Amino acid sequence: MEFRLSNRVTRRDFQGEFTAEILKAAEDPEIISFAGGLPFASSFPVEELKQAAAKVFEENPVLALQYNSAKGYEPLRQVIADRYKKTMNLDFTADDIIITNGSQQGLDLIAASLIDAGDEVACENPCYLVALQTFHLYDPVVIPVELTEEGMDIDSLKDMLDKHNPKFMYMVTNFQNPTGITYTDENRQAIADLVKGRDIVVVEDNPYGELRFAGKAGKSMHYYLGEQCLLLGTFSKIASPGMRVGWIACKNKAMREKLLNYKSAVDLHTNMLCQMVLATYMLDNDFDAHMVDVREMYRQKAVCMLDCLEKYLPEGVRYTKPEGGMFIWVMLPEGISGVDVQREALKRHVGIVAGDPFYENDRGRNTFRLNYTNSTDEEIDRGVKALAESIAAVMAAK
Amino acid sequence: MEFRLSNRVTRRDFQGEFTAEILKAAEDPEIISFAGGLPFASSFPVEELKQAAAKVFEENPVLALQYNSAKGYEPLRQVIADRYKKTMNLDFTADDIIITNGSQQGLDLIAASLIDAGDEVACENPCYLVALQTFHLYDPVVIPVELTEEGMDIDSLKDMLDKHNPKFMYMVTNFQNPTGITYTDENRQAIADLVKGRDIVVVEDNPYGELRFAGKAGKSMHYYLGEQCLLLGTFSKIASPGMRVGWIACKNKAMREKLLNYKSAVDLHTNMLCQMVLATYMLDNDFDAHMVDVREMYRQKAVCMLDCLEKYLPEGVRYTKPEGGMFIWVMLPEGISGVDVQREALKRHVGIVAGDPFYENDRGRNTFRLNYTNSTDEEIDRGVKALAESIAAVMAAK
Repeated sequence: MEFRLSNRVTRRDFQGEFTAEILKAAEDPEIISFAGGLPFASSFPVEELKQAAAKVFEENPVLALQYNSAKGYEPLRQVIADRYKKTMNLDFTADDIIITNGSQQGLDLIAASLIDAGDEVACENPCYLVALQTFHLYDPVVIPVELTEEGMDIDSLKDMLDKHNPKFMYMVTNFQNPTGITYTDENRQAIADLVKGRDIVVVEDNPYGELRFAGKAGKSMHYYLGEQCLLLGTFSKIASPGMRVGWIACKNKAMREKLLNYKSAVDLHTNMLCQMVLATYMLDNDFDAHMVDVREMYRQKAVCMLDCLEKYLPEGVRYTKPEGGMFIWVMLPEGISGVDVQREALKRHVGIVAGDPFYENDRGRNTFRLNYTNSTDEEIDRGVKALAESIAAVMAAK
Repeated sequence: MEFRLSNRVTRRDFQGEFTAEILKAAEDPEIISFAGGLPFASSFPVEELKQAAAKVFEENPVLALQYNSAKGYEPLRQVIADRYKKTMNLDFTADDIIITNGSQQGLDLIAASLIDAGDEVACENPCYLVALQTFHLYDPVVIPVELTEEGMDIDSLKDMLDKHNPKFMYMVTNFQNPTGITYTDENRQAIADLVKGRDIVVVEDNPYGELRFAGKAGKSMHYYLGEQCLLLGTFSKIASPGMRVGWIACKNKAMREKLLNYKSAVDLHTNMLCQMVLATYMLDNDFDAHMVDVREMYRQKAVCMLDCLEKYLPEGVRYTKPEGGMFIWVMLPEGISGVDVQREALKRHVGIVAGDPFYENDRGRNTFRLNYTNSTDEEIDRGVKALAESIAAVMAAK
């Protein structure tokens, strides 16, 4: 029979297929994947998590296996609040933290709690593609704000604020996805000056903040804006994405209650076992030492990929040089399509993500995203070489 | 600042608070809770799950900790398909199964994929309250269909089908939540005859099917309807709710793809660690023997509660006698409100759920739901005694 599907899942701007394809490509052992945002497997603290799991089953199995409340495991929320204090000097309590199934679910809960059909939402242009996709489930009008190497383009932001009144602004201030750029402190301050006191929630997504291997960390938007800023965080890039544990840090009580009620309705709560394993892991181990190792691992991979790009890419191709995170953003000469390069690269068993799905409106763009964290140096060398051939092939066909 | 919340989370029919309260009451050690649908803690196969977790970390840690695809862990999907064959003689393949964060997320994915605002949806009256709440996130018109002790009231169903064209019908055919009743085979056949070939998806939710301690199992609606019927299942009532692993069994490919794409957008995938622990547990242990023990445990608790109801409840109060599952449904004399009884019982440290939130429209109903699976015999005796006093107090005040 023909199922009468909702508009939500059939309209053109629902690009769920795209994410599914990236995750699927990542599973294919034949492909060198620069496509997803996967951590390198050897970055996982396997032994420590194994011991933490054994301890949870030894000491508190019933709590791990029984129903719990939507908010999440209190000791884990306390660990998260403490880490905000330690690494960013932000004052959150355990009560301000809502545990989610990865920060992806955080995006969904926030979108569901704020967007009615037709409402405006402001996003970076280009923007994390699964965020765009999630927001579009709720049928908003997405207003793109241009990026520069320093952060949001302030003229573009002013212009947007003159004409629009978005319910929220979404931004990845550290090692932005897809561009890899980081907002300068001046840029953050300028954004805060413009939005402070307005009826606009700032959603600062910070999955990569702990992955800085060069330069100096900027202040969180929460520092400037207080409860006007919701923060999203995750264990996906620092411990394990497969455990699907992220969080929303939210000081606004009314908003927090709505987020929790909404979460109760869509899946009751996040799995307790992983919450307890992560809390135990964080409390029993030297997590800072772990992060020193992970950062050094990713610094080396970034250097390796930047060297290969320098060595192999044809004249006229530019790219960002990130200070952390997982991505490099490549800008092809005008008129060369990232989608064409993606197609050519896949023929050579290399996965990349063309720029197009990261833009709200533009298509045929001359950009694509590279991930360097999930490949060996040898794969990076071989993959970038094949990628350079793919670009040359597309350029030659012009 | 005042957040501009969406209608979705602010309209009156969003009862997320209710679920949050039930889960919270369940955490209060002072309260004898007959409110939630919690398994008894000693039913959890702790030792076996602990060994399974150790094995996963030993043999396949990277798969457990890395990103995966939305569909879920293939061996777990195969275990589920095999169990459908063994226990219900239904032919599903691993490909037909989508792993979800408990069957609660299955409800959400189905609702999101089918309901546009204003669409009709048919539900049992009374109906599982969190299902109602989840459906209402998508702003449907819910058409209640009356229940009898045999299942759906066929006249009520015929009448509904004459006047309405719901996108789907939601039903819990085994040990229904909240009433505890089971649809007879004749009733299932009659429903199937009425809906077969119509453009209506039948969503059969079966969280309690394995918990039968008396009588004979009926056939799944899928037996009668094939791909027109989606099945929801869960490990919550048979192994562990805290792990949040459930599933949708869906033979319709187009629907399955939309469900997967939607899941990709809202949380990428269900946590891998719990999926792998459950698959390992199911493959390495005698799950049938575990279920024999769980069924006997719940049979004894049901008998205990029915005996206490018989012994303590005032004249004129009726209740269902379930053949399995987790609930007894209590019908008070006309004019006595379940909400009043809930309030009186809470004063006496006993948690129940008044009937009202289970009805789409009716309020002030003379019903409430009791759970017998999460209390000791002593608590059941003490709790039902206090409950009887609460009822007497409400009746006396009339």
